Amino acid sequence: MTLAPELRRDTLPLFDTEASIIRVSRDTRWPWLILVPKGAEVSEMHDLQPELRRSFLDDINRSSEILQQVTTCTSINIAMLGNVVSSLHCHVIARAPEDPGWPGPVWGHGEPVWRDDTSLPGFARQVRARFSTIQ
Amino acid sequence: MTLAPELRRDTLPLFDTEASIIRVSRDTRWPWLILVPKGAEVSEMHDLQPELRRSFLDDINRSSEILQQVTTCTSINIAMLGNVVSSLHCHVIARAPEDPGWPGPVWGHGEPVWRDDTSLPGFARQVRARFSTIQ
Repeated sequence: MTLAPELRRDTLPLFDTEASIIRVSRDTRWPWLILVPKGAEVSEMHDLQPELRRSFLDDINRSSEILQQVTTCTSINIAMLGNVVSSLHCHVIARAPEDPGWPGPVWGHGEPVWRDDTSLPGFARQVRARFSTIQ
Repeated sequence: MTLAPELRRDTLPLFDTEASIIRVSRDTRWPWLILVPKGAEVSEMHDLQPELRRSFLDDINRSSEILQQVTTCTSINIAMLGNVVSSLHCHVIARAPEDPGWPGPVWGHGEPVWRDDTSLPGFARQVRARFSTIQ
């Protein structure tokens, strides 16, 4: 499968699971993961085959749990929107009262602050390291 | 369990499943469902027990599929945010290019246009009618 060009441009590869491609946003304003289901060119969660959907949702759930563990966030935002990039993808974002735009949504808030290289942020390396240890 | 006061105020009851309370937003700008997992006072999806989490996610998935069927939407927005109301709840919203705020998120966009009575909108009655017919 090919990743949507906007996702390829705006995110860095982190790791893959059996069901998902897990990437990290290049926007440094929030700890922000993006998950894409593997091998399915669909726009909506309900268009995934049930088995892949459950595995993809399990990966989202693990990502959420670990992102909360490795950040000092107040809440985790989980969203599948698809208004701009229609290929199905899920945002998992750590939010806190001191972050830009709190308590509003991150999408459309201000201007991105892009990471200027391809090094992975610390939270992303921690997520990758812990991912395989959680059921 | 008690529903968060903001959810009680801003939504109308639609129907319950074994796992979820399904309500409809009183904001008439978008076809907008809100699902709350039953019997669990948690803030994050990953804090739900696995069985309830899967049933709750199945209900979200069915709601998404049916909402797309009964509206003329371009995409379904699914989101669990919790920045304002921390009790776990999931938004399922039908979006289209002609709707307010497209392609931005609905949260924080402009002022609500409240339904002034407790009658259910047509899309919500259709969702309720179809819900039991889908796996």
